[in-house]
Amino acid sequence: MKKQSKRIKLTLEYDGTDFSGFQVQPGKRTVQAELEKTLIKFLDAKTKVFASGRTDAGVHALCQVVHFDSEKQTPLTMLVHELNKSLPPDIAVVDAEYTSPDFDARRMAKEKSYVIKFYLSRFDRPVFANRQIRINDNTDIKSMQKGCKFFVGEHDFTSFVARKSGKTDFVRRVYSAEIVKVGKKEYEFRITGNGFLYNMVRIIFGTLLLVGAGKIKPEDTEKIILAKNRKQAGKTVSAHGLYLTSVKY
Amino acid sequence: MKKQSKRIKLTLEYDGTDFSGFQVQPGKRTVQAELEKTLIKFLDAKTKVFASGRTDAGVHALCQVVHFDSEKQTPLTMLVHELNKSLPPDIAVVDAEYTSPDFDARRMAKEKSYVIKFYLSRFDRPVFANRQIRINDNTDIKSMQKGCKFFVGEHDFTSFVARKSGKTDFVRRVYSAEIVKVGKKEYEFRITGNGFLYNMVRIIFGTLLLVGAGKIKPEDTEKIILAKNRKQAGKTVSAHGLYLTSVKY
Repeated sequence: MKKQSKRIKLTLEYDGTDFSGFQVQPGKRTVQAELEKTLIKFLDAKTKVFASGRTDAGVHALCQVVHFDSEKQTPLTMLVHELNKSLPPDIAVVDAEYTSPDFDARRMAKEKSYVIKFYLSRFDRPVFANRQIRINDNTDIKSMQKGCKFFVGEHDFTSFVARKSGKTDFVRRVYSAEIVKVGKKEYEFRITGNGFLYNMVRIIFGTLLLVGAGKIKPEDTEKIILAKNRKQAGKTVSAHGLYLTSVKY
Repeated sequence: MKKQSKRIKLTLEYDGTDFSGFQVQPGKRTVQAELEKTLIKFLDAKTKVFASGRTDAGVHALCQVVHFDSEKQTPLTMLVHELNKSLPPDIAVVDAEYTSPDFDARRMAKEKSYVIKFYLSRFDRPVFANRQIRINDNTDIKSMQKGCKFFVGEHDFTSFVARKSGKTDFVRRVYSAEIVKVGKKEYEFRITGNGFLYNMVRIIFGTLLLVGAGKIKPEDTEKIILAKNRKQAGKTVSAHGLYLTSVKY
């Protein structure tokens, strides 16, 4: 961190539909690239932002947290206002604050929450396109709700990670996992934990769908956790119903 | 109606964002045009569809009702399935049934319901783009709720019609009008009546926003109704938060 520069913590909302995820990738439209391109206009210098975690293509965020350093001292209310005028409509700044110079959006995150929004229907519903996942009309939601509780607690989530990419520690603590009815045939799968592995939320939900389809019993999810084998878990569900809803420090 | 043809009643859901409204217009993408273009594939003949009413550009429908005649006798479950495979993703068929040959989707509609979805925020929220209207964060929702009740009953709604286009009868009966909290800072304005004039729902809501901003009192809406003068009412709010939610016969 350069002398006299100050660290800023930004909270972002974005619609992931038209992004190739959060992280900069050559030739792709990403949240990070759009944000850095816009920040340079106001901070007069190239600024790298660091997020609480990457989100994949299609995944939305209601409160992604990022940090960056700026030598320019800007009134933050004005910065938020100007950024929101300049950013594309699928990204918005919810909040900004000056933070301690050693604040780290990723490493210091203590708790994250995700939601998968889904609905029961025989056909794809136009008004939920890109925002919610469709589930077969005859899915057994009560069994899925029973299955949720087996994920709560500290577990080795090896069965629920897409690729291991050099990581060796697959133990995470899930604080809560539940399915809540929020409308007529509309539901939310809500999960909170101290951290999540790559695609972990989407694979857990894919496994709960096996329960909902009657292919496995709610309590079988416990065996799948213990197996530490990706092949025993369900499919990775589509990204477009997934929202990062909270990051706590 | 041709001999041997049967009348079919279809219920449609659509996302109005990318349509220039319901009704066919030369050179424009409309719901009617897309539906007729798709029907011809399955019914082997050009078929004109008649809706319960036109919806404007950007307006959504959860249950628009249309009727049309078909000489081809088709099992309706299969027709629904095939239409949903063939229609663009922003239109879906919710239901289909054979109906009486004198059923008329527009003339026989007895009751319609609309919803305007809105949220309070200082900034445009990406995840609500094209689906909900943003309202200033400091809007007085309680006063708007009080204002709703003055619209209920049989009234001359001349103050709430965009253009009169030869019509002479502006009397409509509103059965219910209310604002319901549906989430954190998320609300729905729900209105049901025996029929609605052009832009009536959007102008009523624009008038309630004057109440919410403290520019007029809830009871002033009664005077605005009695004035029979479009200039006394509020602005026509944007179409993108408006949903046709029910048509009853």
